Amino acid sequence: MGEFELIRRCFMQAAQGPGVVTGIGDDCAVLQVPDGQQLVVSIDTLVEGVHFLPGTAPEQVAWRLLGAAVSDLAAAAATPAWLTLALTLPQADPVWLEPFAAALATRARELGISLVGGDTTRGPCLTLSAQVHGWVPAGQALLRSGARAGDRILVSGTLGDSRGGLETLLQPTPSNRNVDWLQQRFYRPEPRVELARQLRPWLQAGLDISDGLLADLQHVLDASAAGAVVERDQVPCSAALLNSYPQQAQEWALSGGEDFELCLAVAPADVAACMAVAERLGVALTDIGRFCAEPGLTVVTADGCPVDGLARGYDHFKEST
Amino acid sequence: MGEFELIRRCFMQAAQGPGVVTGIGDDCAVLQVPDGQQLVVSIDTLVEGVHFLPGTAPEQVAWRLLGAAVSDLAAAAATPAWLTLALTLPQADPVWLEPFAAALATRARELGISLVGGDTTRGPCLTLSAQVHGWVPAGQALLRSGARAGDRILVSGTLGDSRGGLETLLQPTPSNRNVDWLQQRFYRPEPRVELARQLRPWLQAGLDISDGLLADLQHVLDASAAGAVVERDQVPCSAALLNSYPQQAQEWALSGGEDFELCLAVAPADVAACMAVAERLGVALTDIGRFCAEPGLTVVTADGCPVDGLARGYDHFKEST
Repeated sequence: MGEFELIRRCFMQAAQGPGVVTGIGDDCAVLQVPDGQQLVVSIDTLVEGVHFLPGTAPEQVAWRLLGAAVSDLAAAAATPAWLTLALTLPQADPVWLEPFAAALATRARELGISLVGGDTTRGPCLTLSAQVHGWVPAGQALLRSGARAGDRILVSGTLGDSRGGLETLLQPTPSNRNVDWLQQRFYRPEPRVELARQLRPWLQAGLDISDGLLADLQHVLDASAAGAVVERDQVPCSAALLNSYPQQAQEWALSGGEDFELCLAVAPADVAACMAVAERLGVALTDIGRFCAEPGLTVVTADGCPVDGLARGYDHFKEST
Repeated sequence: MGEFELIRRCFMQAAQGPGVVTGIGDDCAVLQVPDGQQLVVSIDTLVEGVHFLPGTAPEQVAWRLLGAAVSDLAAAAATPAWLTLALTLPQADPVWLEPFAAALATRARELGISLVGGDTTRGPCLTLSAQVHGWVPAGQALLRSGARAGDRILVSGTLGDSRGGLETLLQPTPSNRNVDWLQQRFYRPEPRVELARQLRPWLQAGLDISDGLLADLQHVLDASAAGAVVERDQVPCSAALLNSYPQQAQEWALSGGEDFELCLAVAPADVAACMAVAERLGVALTDIGRFCAEPGLTVVTADGCPVDGLARGYDHFKEST
């Protein structure tokens, strides 16, 4: 089976959806952005052995790829629409490709995104780049800039779970309910698309937490020319993480990375409205501190003392190679 | 220098252009498709050692990446607008990254496309995925479907030069004017954007030639449910290719691949109008045969005899690995 037939067979099933004029199979996909909406795009790469462990099941690769990519649309408060996939793999192996494509199609449907094009090539290392496309009413995309002194810092869900899930894979422990749940948080991130869309009217700035809370919050500070104070003990940790890794939970919640939760700037007067939306959607939303005029990012204890020596998140190129 | 600083420093220079509301530096790019236009997108991957030789100069990688990617927009008769880049490389080496980014910015400007986002990650093998975005008046994208029995087959430029250029690299020969020109055709493909846009009113179907004329023409036949007869001696070869590789020129013109010229279906009555446009733009346009109702792709000699045993183009996964 040649390249063309392989791609056709595995990926055609996911090719239809709103706004798709011409999907997979031509030189380009032809797409219709609705009137009054702006296009929002982001591209993300996963490399085997760098972003996921060698031998990870194809379904888990598909979940993680889509979860991370669609989370960038949530970070812009956009509505997911279309996906393209650049897939590089050592060989065209149906034993890997078929379950990958099936999981991608299922998860894409759940996330409301349609595969409209791609490129499959041979290369020595399994590498996947997903570009996601969405739309947002003109002028209303959520950006990193716009946080103002006095705004509260809200985060969705619980933080550090993905790092905990990774730890259970690096240092395997007997399977139990906590371990299974943490691994699911690692493998199958749940982008906060609906939360971001419904909160959009009240959001001053925000992003999704992919490098770790402190590193990503610093991006908001840089873009907004603001400072921030985070109350360490308010940063939400799951019971599963606290039970499994009581010593590390707090550090991982601050710096673990790949949580794919939202970090948002909201005026104090709007916090209650945001909390009500989150409650209706069944997503935790926690006030963890405030933006301020003084530059810098400070983490404080419950009694207001600054905490020093915190790791500031993940940078691929600072790793030893 | 960390990942973020590296990306900012190398790629920020290319971040502005028409329709760019928010470019590089946020979670997503925010983009405005003009009223009445449809969005057209395509993603393409280059892998070192598969699509280009190890050690290829970073400038040449940038030219080739952009030429191949923008050619897909020409294949849809679209206007180039925006580019995103997923770059995976073994190390964040400024000696490679800076000339790559500079050449990318220059070539992007020449091609009328703006870099609006990307993802740079570490991985064992240099891998580049470029997604291009353009627009086309609603309903007017050039597709592979739509060729009708009786339509003429037109191709732009000359074919096989890129394959000839590759040969000069695989089996080095002394540099001369022909060799330099063939290598330029390999390294620096010239997407036929303006030709496709100006011919658009007369085009029934078409694509760009990336896998080889015969393989790509077969894609048009599949999508259009038509057959075709190609007159072998009409397929345009450059003097440089004929002089350097007289034995192989014809085969490479039919099957060599990566020409990034256009192959178009045009009604006989419209051929003269198309030729006039091409002449005004200074691009060769050659009538090489016709579409027909009988299925199948036949290559014939000047006296009408079918030619057998032709290679049908390049398939990454059929190569020995």
